[in-house]
Order: sequence, then C-alpha cells, then structure tokens
Amino acid sequence: MNSRAYPPPLQRLIDELARLPTIGPRSAERMALFLLNAPKEQTQALAQAMLAARQGIGRCAECHYFADQAVCPICAQKSVRQKQMCVVEYPQDVMAVEYTGKYKGLYYVLWGCLSPLDNTGPQDLPLRQLIERVQREGIEEVILATGSSREGEATALYVRQILQPLKIKISRIARGIPVGSTLGHSDRATLAEAMSGRQAIDR
Amino acid sequence: MNSRAYPPPLQRLIDELARLPTIGPRSAERMALFLLNAPKEQTQALAQAMLAARQGIGRCAECHYFADQAVCPICAQKSVRQKQMCVVEYPQDVMAVEYTGKYKGLYYVLWGCLSPLDNTGPQDLPLRQLIERVQREGIEEVILATGSSREGEATALYVRQILQPLKIKISRIARGIPVGSTLGHSDRATLAEAMSGRQAIDR
Repeated sequence: MNSRAYPPPLQRLIDELARLPTIGPRSAERMALFLLNAPKEQTQALAQAMLAARQGIGRCAECHYFADQAVCPICAQKSVRQKQMCVVEYPQDVMAVEYTGKYKGLYYVLWGCLSPLDNTGPQDLPLRQLIERVQREGIEEVILATGSSREGEATALYVRQILQPLKIKISRIARGIPVGSTLGHSDRATLAEAMSGRQAIDR
Repeated sequence: MNSRAYPPPLQRLIDELARLPTIGPRSAERMALFLLNAPKEQTQALAQAMLAARQGIGRCAECHYFADQAVCPICAQKSVRQKQMCVVEYPQDVMAVEYTGKYKGLYYVLWGCLSPLDNTGPQDLPLRQLIERVQREGIEEVILATGSSREGEATALYVRQILQPLKIKISRIARGIPVGSTLGHSDRATLAEAMSGRQAIDR
C-alpha cells in the first residue's frame, strides 16, 4: 500500500466526494475529515438523506418538477393557484421563481432547452404535454422563463410559436441590468436590452 | 406543507449537505440536485463510502494518525523509515508533509495544540506517550511542525521543553515568505522571520 495516501476507506470517501460538482480535491479532503470527526449520527443522517432522496424523489406527473408523490407540492395546490403557467428549463428555476414571492401560478419544467450543439431538438422536450396541460388547466397566461442564453431564447421563441394557436397571453421575462448593478458592469447586449425594454415611470 | 420548499426528502438532503464545512446553501442545493440526477450507483457509492469511513477509520495506536488497522500505513513501514519524528497538530498535516516527498521519517499527531482560550492545556495532548515513543523508537531528531499561529508556537516551545532531557536533536520548521510570493504580499511578522532566518548561499 502506498504510504502517501490516506487509509483506503478514507481515500475512497475523498474520491467519491470529489466527484460532486464544485468540489475540488481540497474541499473533498476537508469534508471527509469533517465527516470522520463529526458525531456518528450526523454522518449516518447525511448518508441516509442521500439514499432516501435518490430513492424517493421522482418527477411530477403534471409539471415534471421534483415530487415525492405523484404530483409535486405546487401542482397539489393548483386549485388555489392563479391560471398562469411559468415555463422553465430546470427544476431549480422553479425554486428561484418561488423564492421571489411574486408569482402565484403553476409551472412547467422542460428539463432542458433547444440546443443543436447538444443534439436537443423539439422532439426531446415535453412540448405536446405542455400544450395539453395549458388547455386542460384553462391557463390564461404563459410566462416564458427560460434563460437569456442563445438556447434559452430559441426555446422561448419556439414555445411561443407552438402556443400561439391557443390564443392566450404569452409573455417573456424581462432582460435588463441586474438589481444593484451599475451600467459599467453590464455587457453591451444586456444594456441594449435594458434600453429597449425601458418602462415609463411618470404615470 | 410549504409549497416554497423542495419535496421533503430533497430538502432534508440539502439541509444535511449544508452542515458540511465550506458548503453554503447554494452549493448544498447544487450538490443535492446533482446527486438526484447522477446514476443511482454513484449516490450509493458515496453514501456507502461515508458510512464505511466513519465505521472503519480509527486512530493509529502509535502515532494517532488515521488508521483502518491497529497502526497506520506509515507506522506499519517504520522499519524502512528514518529515525526522525515529525510532530504535527492535525492528521491532515501528516498528508501535507508526506506530499512534499522530502521527509521519510515517522509522525506524531497531537490532535490539537495548547490553547488557553479553548481550555486546551498540556494534559489534553498525548505528550507522555510522545516521550515514550521517541525513546522506544530510538528517534534521533524530532521536528516540531506545529503551525506558526500563537498556539502552534506555544505548543512547539512546550514540546521542545519536555523533550530536552532526552538529549536528541530538536528542530522547528522554517518560517519565511511562501514560495512564489512577493515581499509586498507578506505581512511584517513573516518578513521579519524571513530576514532573521536567512541562510548563506555562497558556499
């Protein structure tokens, strides 16, 4: 055995931790040492939470968000939600919009966006079910909340196109300078969007 | 149930991950989402590595470093190691010195240092066993490699004092400016140490 390594069970833990996103070898080492010294219950709780989440979390049958039941907590409340539907790329985007506290409607998670480079075309996104769901729920406005990357924009345009026959309101989240930012820190494209998307304030 | 939270098993995983050092709520969220989408085998491997490390790793009976046997991999090789002993504060310090590739002796881990503020006195460190071990192994040089914090320095001084009756060579790792650093980036105390610890180069 190589003496310039931790004992095998510890090295294995470090290696597994280092496979997580944003965790480099140094962080993995620090986390592993922490787990070795933490109360046994804490390490067990983390390992069990990991297995339970991996086992128990699936996708909502209605909106494809995370769910530990057939439908997610948001769709389960749909009777008290507004007749709006926010279309996002990824499940974490749902949480981001929920945290704003400004939106009380439903969601629809595409789990991706149109990306020719990744070979993701319209047939790879659950768009037919989106149309069906908008009709079934009597949605009055669809808010396209995909990202403002090239792929996010293309996806928003495409979804707008396929929803247009439904004759409902379709909107796109605003682009502009981030709150708390200065103009000097904004790139030219963002600033151009912020200018053209300007809103009257004297009313 | 609060709709502004992830489904409970996922939220539990995020909360447990966020208890790890250097992991904020955002990183915990990213890691949890990654674990949900990763192959089931990977999540299981991580959970099992965690439990196995927590169960299977103890402290070396000789040097108190991590060990999955009675003695650690380094002490197991002591017949081919040099008669030096490097005294460090924490087990990760052993790995740091090993990685330099410049040291072929043994180690001794104090699992702490003298720190009046944390109520850690000499009786809380395994110092009697250190003396015994130095004698038993016929150690010829003890290298004090505690940190250069006030506590690390106090610990080094104290250990030097209790080892002095053994009449062996005792040394302290050098303090100075880090490799690749400029003088402008060094604090005054470090630079003072670097000056007083200067070494002749014209020989």
